Amino acid sequence: MSNHIITPKTPTGTMELLPREQIVFQNMLDTIRQKFERYGFLPIETPVFEETNILLTKSGGDTEKQVYFVQSTGSRQQGHAPDLALRFDLTVPLARYVAEHQNELAFPFRRYQMQRVYRGERAQKGRFREFYQCDIDVIGRDNLSAAYDAEMPVVIADIFRDLKIGAFTINVSNRKILSGYMKDLQIDSEKWPLLLREIDKADKIGWDKVKENIQPLVGKVFDELLDFMQQDYTNEERIRYLEHGVFSFIGAQTREGLDEIKLLLKTATDMGAGDVIRFNPAITRGLDYYTGTVYETFLNDHKNFGSICSGGRYDNLASYYTKSKLPGVGISIGLTRLFEQMRHAGLVNNAPSTVKILITMMDETLSSDYRRIATELRKAGINTEIYLEQHKLDKQFKYADKAGIGFALVMGGDEKAKGVVALKNLQTREQTEIKQASLVTDIVKAIS
Amino acid sequence: MSNHIITPKTPTGTMELLPREQIVFQNMLDTIRQKFERYGFLPIETPVFEETNILLTKSGGDTEKQVYFVQSTGSRQQGHAPDLALRFDLTVPLARYVAEHQNELAFPFRRYQMQRVYRGERAQKGRFREFYQCDIDVIGRDNLSAAYDAEMPVVIADIFRDLKIGAFTINVSNRKILSGYMKDLQIDSEKWPLLLREIDKADKIGWDKVKENIQPLVGKVFDELLDFMQQDYTNEERIRYLEHGVFSFIGAQTREGLDEIKLLLKTATDMGAGDVIRFNPAITRGLDYYTGTVYETFLNDHKNFGSICSGGRYDNLASYYTKSKLPGVGISIGLTRLFEQMRHAGLVNNAPSTVKILITMMDETLSSDYRRIATELRKAGINTEIYLEQHKLDKQFKYADKAGIGFALVMGGDEKAKGVVALKNLQTREQTEIKQASLVTDIVKAIS
Repeated sequence: MSNHIITPKTPTGTMELLPREQIVFQNMLDTIRQKFERYGFLPIETPVFEETNILLTKSGGDTEKQVYFVQSTGSRQQGHAPDLALRFDLTVPLARYVAEHQNELAFPFRRYQMQRVYRGERAQKGRFREFYQCDIDVIGRDNLSAAYDAEMPVVIADIFRDLKIGAFTINVSNRKILSGYMKDLQIDSEKWPLLLREIDKADKIGWDKVKENIQPLVGKVFDELLDFMQQDYTNEERIRYLEHGVFSFIGAQTREGLDEIKLLLKTATDMGAGDVIRFNPAITRGLDYYTGTVYETFLNDHKNFGSICSGGRYDNLASYYTKSKLPGVGISIGLTRLFEQMRHAGLVNNAPSTVKILITMMDETLSSDYRRIATELRKAGINTEIYLEQHKLDKQFKYADKAGIGFALVMGGDEKAKGVVALKNLQTREQTEIKQASLVTDIVKAIS
Repeated sequence: MSNHIITPKTPTGTMELLPREQIVFQNMLDTIRQKFERYGFLPIETPVFEETNILLTKSGGDTEKQVYFVQSTGSRQQGHAPDLALRFDLTVPLARYVAEHQNELAFPFRRYQMQRVYRGERAQKGRFREFYQCDIDVIGRDNLSAAYDAEMPVVIADIFRDLKIGAFTINVSNRKILSGYMKDLQIDSEKWPLLLREIDKADKIGWDKVKENIQPLVGKVFDELLDFMQQDYTNEERIRYLEHGVFSFIGAQTREGLDEIKLLLKTATDMGAGDVIRFNPAITRGLDYYTGTVYETFLNDHKNFGSICSGGRYDNLASYYTKSKLPGVGISIGLTRLFEQMRHAGLVNNAPSTVKILITMMDETLSSDYRRIATELRKAGINTEIYLEQHKLDKQFKYADKAGIGFALVMGGDEKAKGVVALKNLQTREQTEIKQASLVTDIVKAIS
């Protein structure tokens, strides 16, 4: 065939990796999954698309502009409107899932979900149209104790420690604290979201600018609080200040928010994660969706990455799909974005291959021997590849190097006659002789 | 909010699982992945969509009718045609991937890929619009030894044994055998695909019908061969017959096909998979795409499931995207379909929960103790959940039962004072007392 060649091109706004990068990424996914399960979360997966009437209920506005619609050729030809769309987060599918299957689920329902989500964003550096989210949520029926909110950052701390991505801080707050103050200060409730949104910008625009922006809304009533917040106090000092220092009163809602934060800090301390948690009332999350605890996580040395893991408490997960009241708390790691940022910052090294040893093809007449050796090694749990082309040994070593394989096994007629094989460490170029009689044991020892 | 409720509904033609089914499915995916890696295949993932000009090059016709197009709100509003579509298999993305990244890959390139694919099929029982494929392929540059074809069924045999899905048979053949005969019998090459397609139907329509259908094309020249094929001969007898018994000649192409099959059978025997491989020349695969070895796998006790794992050798993977010649061989497990068929046949049991032990909340004032115990157990690698609501113990046990958790730990003030905890086996309802001093060791022992 002499075709016209179509230039092969990964779609814009997606992350596609070479195998040795994919292995790094896969290791991260595996670590996250293992920890999610370690803390008692159960796996679910939902379809990549949802029916449009389900997906587009919730958000309208901005999100709707970013939705990817899905439509089969047949449906297009018949002039129908698309009835499917790609999920833009894992929360709407979770809401639909829990509402649909609620009678078959055990509550509190603790689920994890690690799948890709889709946003029809304009192409732009750092903006992904397809990216992984790794979510955990706990959903209660009618009620859900704040103790569940308290455990979330412990899970995240354990994961980020294991991922070895450097020092990090999980910022926590509780929206009840500031809303409580606003309520008790009799600030018009229409102004609350604006106010919270301004305070949330502090890290980006600075505290002075925040004060300036909120003055037209509420005057200077929060200035002292904001001044305090930007100081480097301990979590305990902050709580003490909020309980006794800032205003002459403390209302029921603020009290509740503070108690929930105290439980969270106590839990983190009990569970060995106290040192990475920072109580930071400036964290409010943009979304009105959240009603209590909120989380945002930053790398201490790479604050410019933005929050790498966020979430919070919500009153009712699935009011669009069921009359059951389903309060919940969840947190989400945006893994694709984190990985890509780390890669750009030079923090990701190629992984060694998943293949531990390459059995070279030195002499084709010994193929049956190579196959038997490979079978033994595989049975012993060693990822083993046989090079099956009669190429020069040097070419085979080069292949192993490029693929990131650490060891090569060489056996020609002489070695076979002597009852040995040669094991070559491809990093040190060292070669050792191994007896065939103890082949598996010796190789397991050498490569681990 | 008093919303109008939208009935929550999983999209038609997708498989969505409850957690305890998802765990079974996930275990299968894990087994497959582990074995793929064990045999030296490397992971890749590609985006769920490809640009339409890339995706729709290859096939036209039927496939194009089943494609799901993807389009953002913005693109729709501007009246553009969709420029993205969901992948309908993993082969086209692999072709694009290898063509695009060929200078960065080590050849022979051995990749595995386990992702979902999409077909805009009409809704129908057993037809999926979204389903997992688990693929391995080896891609050569310019050449690829038939020894790679030979290793494929060994990987598959190892996987299906581990999955414990019952007895299975991997049917193998080589299209060169029949094409060689057809060539040497000077049958018009336009008739070859028709002929192969008819023979491929033998399992469905019976051999007599096949003979009847091919008579107008080629007369009775193949009748003796077809009669032989349906008999229960061993692989060796079949080869001997084809080499010496059926025609008075044996051409170069047939010879090549037979030699490749012999290498495959020898390899399978060397690697302990000889007993599940059946040389069956009636297997031709419908697709013209395949040029040599072909594979189809059936469950012996559930032939009606159809082939659960198929594939073959192809001459050139990516002729649409590159001038490089990239011969390859691949095989694919259709896991969603297999799982769903097994489920309908009653062959899938709910898995126990991934959570091994539930720490019950007997006394809220002991929360810190529960948290410390959970932390210790998790550090020891035990998936542990704490029930964080102050509910009656009985309700907590019921929750654990429904979730499939095997053990519950109970500690009230009395137990704490005595330095013990109670460990309840939720299946046997047996309760044992464990000393707090040896808690982790004793629990690890009890639950494993």
